[in-house]
Formats: sequence, structure tokens, C-alpha cells
Amino acid sequence: MKTVYSDKHHLHHGQAELFAGKLVPCFEMPSRADMIFAEVKKRNLGEILVPQNFDRTRIERVHRPAYVDFLEQAWADWTAIGETTDILPICTPARDMRSDRIPQNIHGRVSYFSFDTTAPITSGTWTAAKTAADVALTAQNLITKGARSAFALCRPPGHHASSDYYGGYCFLNNAAIAAQGFRDAGAARVAILDVDYHHGNGTQSIFYDRSDVYFASVHGDPATSYPFFLGYGDETGRGPGEGCNANYPLAAGTSAETWFEALEIACAGVQRYQPDALVISLGVDTYEGDPISYFKLKSEDFLKMGDRLARLDLPTLFVMEGGYAVEDLGVNTVNVLEAFAHKNP
Amino acid sequence: MKTVYSDKHHLHHGQAELFAGKLVPCFEMPSRADMIFAEVKKRNLGEILVPQNFDRTRIERVHRPAYVDFLEQAWADWTAIGETTDILPICTPARDMRSDRIPQNIHGRVSYFSFDTTAPITSGTWTAAKTAADVALTAQNLITKGARSAFALCRPPGHHASSDYYGGYCFLNNAAIAAQGFRDAGAARVAILDVDYHHGNGTQSIFYDRSDVYFASVHGDPATSYPFFLGYGDETGRGPGEGCNANYPLAAGTSAETWFEALEIACAGVQRYQPDALVISLGVDTYEGDPISYFKLKSEDFLKMGDRLARLDLPTLFVMEGGYAVEDLGVNTVNVLEAFAHKNP
Repeated sequence: MKTVYSDKHHLHHGQAELFAGKLVPCFEMPSRADMIFAEVKKRNLGEILVPQNFDRTRIERVHRPAYVDFLEQAWADWTAIGETTDILPICTPARDMRSDRIPQNIHGRVSYFSFDTTAPITSGTWTAAKTAADVALTAQNLITKGARSAFALCRPPGHHASSDYYGGYCFLNNAAIAAQGFRDAGAARVAILDVDYHHGNGTQSIFYDRSDVYFASVHGDPATSYPFFLGYGDETGRGPGEGCNANYPLAAGTSAETWFEALEIACAGVQRYQPDALVISLGVDTYEGDPISYFKLKSEDFLKMGDRLARLDLPTLFVMEGGYAVEDLGVNTVNVLEAFAHKNP
Repeated sequence: MKTVYSDKHHLHHGQAELFAGKLVPCFEMPSRADMIFAEVKKRNLGEILVPQNFDRTRIERVHRPAYVDFLEQAWADWTAIGETTDILPICTPARDMRSDRIPQNIHGRVSYFSFDTTAPITSGTWTAAKTAADVALTAQNLITKGARSAFALCRPPGHHASSDYYGGYCFLNNAAIAAQGFRDAGAARVAILDVDYHHGNGTQSIFYDRSDVYFASVHGDPATSYPFFLGYGDETGRGPGEGCNANYPLAAGTSAETWFEALEIACAGVQRYQPDALVISLGVDTYEGDPISYFKLKSEDFLKMGDRLARLDLPTLFVMEGGYAVEDLGVNTVNVLEAFAHKNP
């Protein structure tokens, strides 16, 4: 399996996120991708490619242009008013507040385009996020051109980013951009299967009204797990998208056995949909050692996961999402990929 | 003019708020009310009363009971999971997220019921906020029983708190609770005039569909000023409340002269409404020296403000809101009250 990777992800290195009332060092750190990349090389997963540079319009197929403008300009706007600390929002539009007017100044725009305090924007965030989208599109292109699978080693991750707001360490939704890339390259139907511990609220939101992209997710129950406000089982899509969204929330503390039962049901849904291509939003924070997630998978379970996903027998793009047990991140991630490639080379 | 005050406000003393990407000492601090109280005594504004203890149901006339439960229980729930730092939210429900399900655990509930990162909940926040509501209701009661005016020296302030979310240093909406108190005591129509620099989004939200409470506000344009997502001039009320909401947004940097022109228009609206009672949401952060606001009123302008409000010739309850130039807060606040009382004793 080929891997697409760029070390430009280092340009995004937030100092701190707000967690339990304190600013703590970001759980989403550059060494995450470094550990995975080292393991990819160590285990000779396959050729490693650098990403092509795609036009911004490819991103705007799933993100609102004003939002992309904001991300590209935010750091310049922030430093122009004399700020030097990483950007975090003050507030966000609450449920009965207006979303039809974008504030004019940077403080207001940050608050408008964000939904949490975990994703600092730094001087290099735009370049890193744009490059991560390029990584996803480059890997998608490999599959469109005939590869059976590819690994987009994206960082920052993407699945919490919606059309026009960021959060949860995510800025551009790499998986959604790649899924749209498959569509634009001629695939009639694309499925996204999100196995990250946290619900891929952004991906769901982007495709919620559409029948051409199926979204399935196995994740921590939003009643007690971030992002709290999407991810329930009764979210099944809307309008033309009705029936094309499938959530499998599981209680914190769920065992590997129960997790794989849910994955089985999610896989059956993907299979029924008969997609031309599959995108896996690959978070490995389902691991028992993850510091901010609460499932109980062991490292060997990730081999089993790769094996199960291979049996879907679909052109499959793996897009890296979360996973914060940094020391074990490489092994767990490459376990999925290697097992997959072994069965579906 | 009588003042209602309780030193229980000291029980709410947040350590830090998130401001421009950093945790900084809270601008909304106990010394604010202490400075005002000292000036009230120094200038012999009038008798000082302690608040009565009102039933929680009085608060639930404008706040959702589940929200009041949350505020009352939050600190116990937080410490029960081992946290000791003041409570700040991780995220908030973004525009297309769900608001029909309240998360079960404390992290999720904090995020559900908040909209910003400026309002830490501490061990004493509930008692202080409940007491501030009691202060407002006690002062309302004085007017209901015949007083021409009264000053509710509330802290924490209230006007950013909506029916079911907090933020902007506010937890319970003291002005809204008092306005409802007037209604419940027999007033047919109540007007609220908000002169704080920041739009009283919570008060607007609470009464937006109602014709029995008129809300007018002169404030910093939300295009560039907190709270950013309410306070535009085209927000005029909804349904039965159409025409009972009036916003007068002004650009940052607005002079006292222009500010008084807007106040004049707002006063005309109040007068046309012919309320039985008037609540002034009294923020004095329109002061030129305020550290987080951008109008240019001088201390003597607050005398002029009191004089103008007195000429409305209505039973008037002053409810303390913002103002962060702590050293000048007492003088500016009591300037309003003394000038008012001089003209409308």
C-alpha cells in the first residue's frame, strides 16, 4: 500500500488547548504523524509519495469559500491586531443566535467559524491543513487511477470540520474532500466509514442531505463523549440523503468484542450501499491506552480491523484521523494497514 | 434611591477567562461590586437593604428548569469526577448540531449550556448568581410596592444569559427575572432598556416572542463587538413580539454625542410602548476608560444619562450589568443613579 505524506504537518503545532478548565499541551501534536510515518517506513508498508498541490477549488467542493478564506487569512488578521498567541475562540453562535452574518473583525470571525477550544490556529495551520487536504487528494487519485488502496497520512485530522466551522483538532475535512474527489473523478457512489473513537460530525454534516455519499460511524455515545451534539443513532440523513447516514454510538468502556459487533453492522450497511470507492476515516483512539478516549481495543485488534475492512473488497482510501497514545500510534495504525494490504494487496 | 446588595457576590470569583488565546485574570471580579457599593455608601445614595430569599420558581419563569438544575449542580458534578479547576466549556453546539438532547455527563452538559469561555463556574457561582437574582427581585418588589426607583447591585451580571445558556460573565438573567417579576406582580407592560456596551443577547432572546416585555438596547455593533451573533438593527421581535425589540448598534469608537442620540431614539421607543415599569440594564462599560469596550463616555456623561432616564418619568429599576474600569466603576455607576434620583426622587 502506498502512503502519501508531507512533513509540512509540522507547521501546525499548537501550544495549548482548553481541557477541563485548563490550558494543557495539545494532545494533537506533530509527533503523532512522525510516529506513524516511522512505522510505515520500518515495516515497509510500501512506496511513500509526496502530495501534489491541488487547486483550492477542490477544497471548496465541500467547504464554504468564506470559511476557506477565513482559514487562509486568520493568522495574518490576528497578527495585524498585535496578537501573537495561538488563536482560540471567545464564544460561538449559540442555538438561537444568528448565523447569517459573518462578523467583520478577527475575534468575531474566529468565533463564527469555530465550535470548540481544542484547535488553536497557528502561523502554519493553513499550510499544514491545505497540505493534508492535498495528501488526501493525492491518495484518492492513486485509487482513481487503479490502486486497490492507499494511505493518506493526513495531519491535522479532518472529520470534525464541517462545511464552515472547525474544532476537534480539525480544520479541513480531508476525508470529505477525498470522497468528493472520488465523485468528481466519476465514482457514482462513495462510502465513508469512520472508525475514530469520536463521531465524525463534520463529515456527517457535509453529506447529510446527499445520497451519493454514504456515511457510517462507530463511535463513543455523544451523550457522554465529544463532540456531544451529533452522532446519535436516529440521525439517518435528510431529504435525498435519508438512509445514507448510519451512526453506531457505543458506551464509554466498550470492549473490543462489542466494538467489532458494531463494525460488522456498519460494514453490512456499506456493502448494501454498493459504493464504487470506500474512504476509511482512520482514528486509532479506540485503543485501550488512549488518554482522551474510552474504548478497549488492544494493538492486535487493529490487525483484525484491517482484515475485516479488506473483506469489504472495495477500492479503499485510508485517511488518518485521531489517536493520542503517541508511543503506540505507529504500531496501531500500521497494524490496520498491513493487515488490510495482506488480504487485499 | 434604595440599594439592594449582598456580599455573597464574593462567592463567585473566577480565576481566569479565555481572552485572545490566553487564560487571563477575569475582568469580571468581586472588586467591581465592592467599588460600587463603597461609592453608594460614600455618597449616601439611600438606604441599603439585604435581599430576601425567593423561591427558585421565580427564576424558572424565564429560565429553563433543566438549565437552573445544571447551574445548581455543576460544581458538585465537576468535583465528583475529580476536577478542581474552575469550569470552562470544551465546545458548544454549532449551528447545525442538535440541541434537543442534553448530554448526560458534566463535560457535555457544560458545553450544552454555555456559549463562551469567559464565564468560569466556581464552587460559589450558584449561590452568588441565585443571590444576584434575589437582589433584583427584592429591588423589583420595592418598586411594585410604590418606590419610584431602586438599585439592584447585582453581581454576577445577567444580560448575556438566555433561557438555557450562560456566557459573557452571566449565569442568571437578573434583569429578565425582575421584568418577569413586575409582570407577575400585575404590571401589564414592562420595558427593559439596556445601556451596557455589549448587546443584551440573553434578555432579547428570552422576550423575543413576547409583546408584554419591550427590549431596547444601545450597544457596540455585533459585526465587531461581542457577543457578535445578536444585536443587529433588523432584530425587531417575532410573532406576538414583533415590534417589541429595538437594537441600536453603534460602531466601536462612538462618541458620547452620538451615543446620546441613539439613547434618545431608544427612549422614544420606550415612551411609545407606555410601560408600567422600566428596568435599566445598567452597564457602565460605555466609559472611555473601559479595558474591553470601545465607546467614549466620560464620567460626567453618566450624570447626563441618569438625568435623561429620569425624564422618562417611569418607576425604574436599575440592575447592574457590566463595567470593567474598576477604579472608576463606583463613580460612573453612582453618577447615573444620583442624577436620576435628583430629578425623580
